[in-house]
Amino acid sequence: MDKILRIDMGAEGGPRVSEEALGAYAGFGGRALTSAVVSKEVPPLCHPLGAENKLVIAPGLLSGTIASMSGRLSVGCKSPLTGGIKEANSGGQGAQVLARLGYAAIILEGKPQNDDLYKIFINADGVKISVDNSLRMLPNYDLVEKMKQQHGEKITCLSIGPAGEMKMGAATIAVTDMELRPTRHAGRGGVGAVMGAKGVKVIVLDDTGVKMRPPKDPEKFKEANKQWVEGLKKHPVTGQGLPAYGTNVLTNVLNEAGGYPTYNFKQGRFDGAAKISGETQAETETARGGSATHGCHRGCVIQCSGTYNDKDGHFLSKQPEYETVWSHGGQCGNSDLDAIAQMDFIEDNYGLDTIEMGVTLGVAMEGGLLKWGDAQAAISMLHEVGKGTPLGRILGNGAAMTGRAFGVERVPVVKGQALPAYDPRAVQGIGVTYATSTMGADHTAGYAVATNILGVGGKVDPLKPEGQVELSRNLQIATAAVDSTGMCLFIAFAIMDQPETFQALLDLLNAFYGLNLNADGVVELGKTVLKMERDFNAKAGFTSEHDRLPRFFKTEKVPPHDVVFEVKDEDLDKVFNW
Amino acid sequence: MDKILRIDMGAEGGPRVSEEALGAYAGFGGRALTSAVVSKEVPPLCHPLGAENKLVIAPGLLSGTIASMSGRLSVGCKSPLTGGIKEANSGGQGAQVLARLGYAAIILEGKPQNDDLYKIFINADGVKISVDNSLRMLPNYDLVEKMKQQHGEKITCLSIGPAGEMKMGAATIAVTDMELRPTRHAGRGGVGAVMGAKGVKVIVLDDTGVKMRPPKDPEKFKEANKQWVEGLKKHPVTGQGLPAYGTNVLTNVLNEAGGYPTYNFKQGRFDGAAKISGETQAETETARGGSATHGCHRGCVIQCSGTYNDKDGHFLSKQPEYETVWSHGGQCGNSDLDAIAQMDFIEDNYGLDTIEMGVTLGVAMEGGLLKWGDAQAAISMLHEVGKGTPLGRILGNGAAMTGRAFGVERVPVVKGQALPAYDPRAVQGIGVTYATSTMGADHTAGYAVATNILGVGGKVDPLKPEGQVELSRNLQIATAAVDSTGMCLFIAFAIMDQPETFQALLDLLNAFYGLNLNADGVVELGKTVLKMERDFNAKAGFTSEHDRLPRFFKTEKVPPHDVVFEVKDEDLDKVFNW
Repeated sequence: MDKILRIDMGAEGGPRVSEEALGAYAGFGGRALTSAVVSKEVPPLCHPLGAENKLVIAPGLLSGTIASMSGRLSVGCKSPLTGGIKEANSGGQGAQVLARLGYAAIILEGKPQNDDLYKIFINADGVKISVDNSLRMLPNYDLVEKMKQQHGEKITCLSIGPAGEMKMGAATIAVTDMELRPTRHAGRGGVGAVMGAKGVKVIVLDDTGVKMRPPKDPEKFKEANKQWVEGLKKHPVTGQGLPAYGTNVLTNVLNEAGGYPTYNFKQGRFDGAAKISGETQAETETARGGSATHGCHRGCVIQCSGTYNDKDGHFLSKQPEYETVWSHGGQCGNSDLDAIAQMDFIEDNYGLDTIEMGVTLGVAMEGGLLKWGDAQAAISMLHEVGKGTPLGRILGNGAAMTGRAFGVERVPVVKGQALPAYDPRAVQGIGVTYATSTMGADHTAGYAVATNILGVGGKVDPLKPEGQVELSRNLQIATAAVDSTGMCLFIAFAIMDQPETFQALLDLLNAFYGLNLNADGVVELGKTVLKMERDFNAKAGFTSEHDRLPRFFKTEKVPPHDVVFEVKDEDLDKVFNW
Repeated sequence: MDKILRIDMGAEGGPRVSEEALGAYAGFGGRALTSAVVSKEVPPLCHPLGAENKLVIAPGLLSGTIASMSGRLSVGCKSPLTGGIKEANSGGQGAQVLARLGYAAIILEGKPQNDDLYKIFINADGVKISVDNSLRMLPNYDLVEKMKQQHGEKITCLSIGPAGEMKMGAATIAVTDMELRPTRHAGRGGVGAVMGAKGVKVIVLDDTGVKMRPPKDPEKFKEANKQWVEGLKKHPVTGQGLPAYGTNVLTNVLNEAGGYPTYNFKQGRFDGAAKISGETQAETETARGGSATHGCHRGCVIQCSGTYNDKDGHFLSKQPEYETVWSHGGQCGNSDLDAIAQMDFIEDNYGLDTIEMGVTLGVAMEGGLLKWGDAQAAISMLHEVGKGTPLGRILGNGAAMTGRAFGVERVPVVKGQALPAYDPRAVQGIGVTYATSTMGADHTAGYAVATNILGVGGKVDPLKPEGQVELSRNLQIATAAVDSTGMCLFIAFAIMDQPETFQALLDLLNAFYGLNLNADGVVELGKTVLKMERDFNAKAGFTSEHDRLPRFFKTEKVPPHDVVFEVKDEDLDKVFNW
């Protein structure tokens, strides 16, 4: 994993492949690498769909090793949704396989000179790029089937659906899981649109005959991994809650806390929550012959995923995540879990961000386009997106665009990106992250919910402004570092509570690379990443005025706690003063 | 004209009217007043369609007097299109009548608590506000007919069409002309959407029994006006070119100069230009029993407007302006003048900005939605806008939204607002104005075309970067001042070339108000206005990075001169260093 694969899609005579050493990017992986490349090589004022933007796909520092949970893939570019820097992060097999193939990053550059659609095939023998216009507008599931027919079952696919080809702001890059299903997505910020603008439909990875990456100190590495796995297994969130109920364990928790955004952020509790909770979901999955405990990539011990079958026991979708259940559930006033799973599948298939789309449907409901809770109408609308009708073009470009199109005032976005599943008035720490993250509203950028609601890493009252800035700051720094390791963010629960598990992570990095990294080094890495991202955004035109929630969170009280977002603007501006 | 009329549309129990003295706003009129109110009273981060935004409608300092050309009306708010401050400026009878009724401004505040649509009637007896939902979705022409039936022929209407009701980013506020036709528009930046968000369909003004505003020194004022009219009549642009051919006299001039944007800014000359030139237009109008020389308000001596009839001699539209002819002509590769007049009428009727819409149609053509030059398809699309279909919602929100929806990269906008009819590569001075204006791309904010192309106010080579920043700066300052007087901007040609005509303007102001204003005072006023606007925009999140043209103007050469925009970013940042 010591080389970068560059593909200039706009080269004279067709795509030109080159390989180079990491060079100035040595020591960076995952988000650190994607953000370094974007901030160094992409003009901040370029058009996100233009030749000057670059799409950077990078496994983490520990991806492709035996280290458990190291399968996260970072995808970076200038975002078509936010206009700022973007790192979208996906599970699935992509990171492990790409790392084992020896690539620290794939960088797609330029823009094809015509409308051809390309397939990129990478294996131990090298890189093959071919035009394949027969793939045009294939949904992800069909596309992957076709790739299996062409390349066998030992592949991993990174692909875009119709949404990416249509360059929609909610378009994702799908990554196949262990079952070779396109269920994992670099979801946020329209990274799929950038891949579409590069004319690349699919990157097929085949790691046949390629070995696991060797650590500098194999013994120490093995021992560290043992401690690591033990730590993850003993923490109640990563060892019990997530395996048993998946991320959707949060529905009842957030609903109880009054922080479950309902009817487009009008209230913090949803009547129908019990019907779509993780508990109900796990029970339904098990009863129908699906699975409630499953990993999304080899080497996962948390196993927060699952399989959701329909009433007849046929595969409907992978287990929808909490955010997806919420965005198509409470946000839309819908408590039909089967319909939610159906929408999860449709969005995976078209290649759409489930958070952005669910929030968008809620905004469309507020705008009177369909009735609250009308899941069948919502499903019809998603098909409009897949077909690229004018209505679909609006919805597929996300909540902000939908609000604009239909004159809706209450649009829950920051920097143009939809808010996830935690009301920032009832969980004020996550509000600070939404407002100030370099990524637009993003719960994964600094998951203050852990401390505000779950009591992980201490306790900060979720309803009060005090302590939230410091909490979000520390989490944003730590997250930027974790996102660079290739580690799944859910490890955060264990490393925040258990010093020995955090030490095991350091030991993994040190044993693998022969380093002497300590906690301070991790913090420095996180700060370095955030600084690069903030610099890019400033040059792209972002100011402190963009580090704000929509004003209605300051003026409209959310029941049941009847609170507004109370963190002051001047305090938001201190998040990055370290 | 010493009082402000405030109407709180969101008051408990229905709209609440109050009147107040000018107070801290004394000495301001027109754009100075709208920008003062917006910058002082509107939270820069508010939602443009929300209760916190305000719509300010203000005649100029000399409106309502006998001073010739003083009929311009300023409409200000936070713009739904740009997200920044907005002053859109209209001819027609509105300014004169409102000023004579004694109002320095109408300020619409708040937001109605339900969906009712309101009519506001103002005459010498006061203000009457009534709900009239029968007006819903009426196009402007039909609406005005209805108002004539209700209130007689001695009225002036300020109204929104369906576009404003649907809160579209291209929605205008129409102002009736001397024939009581809704042909004049506060066009740019979506001011009509803000009126729509306030629930106001129409403001009917009746100045029956109201007198001309009396100057402090009537004799001096009369004498100054004589000099003023003489100066306007003797300048070749205001005395000959504009009266004979209207603003469309520019088609041949810009086409010859290679600065006529064609096929969505792909080339600087259009094959079909002669067919849609001002000369052809005037000839056509005269031959069909229309008129090529006509004023848009009482007291106009330039008479740049006219009447465009169809082949059978029936009214088709008022004489389309140069910008309209261009945006539906060269921008779209269309040389059918009758179709252009038809689109002008349709847009006036639905209440749409003709610049934004024409540019949008060109972007849609680039995106493959319709063929270059297909005027009939363009007309169909405009009806989609009027009907508010999803496609219409996209188009009616302008070029930036349309580019986003259909993944088009070449979108000629600054701050979200479409570029007018001068290619910034071939007319680099106007490029500086487009980039840096507080308004988004706006030719009227500092009309460097005058000096670059027409040789008015000196000569600066249009193809070179040298001297453009200073030119644009001086023009932006002067324009901000002129926009505050109520004077039509076309007076600029005469005052730039003829010192005695500029003096006549100062004399008019001094004689009317009993002032001792000199040239320095005018410059100070202009700077004050720009500073307020820049401050608002900074607080709304605008930085120097927003004072830029889209990057393709720097990278794509435009024929026939094969030039790019060469003014450096650091020089753009000096425009407001005075």
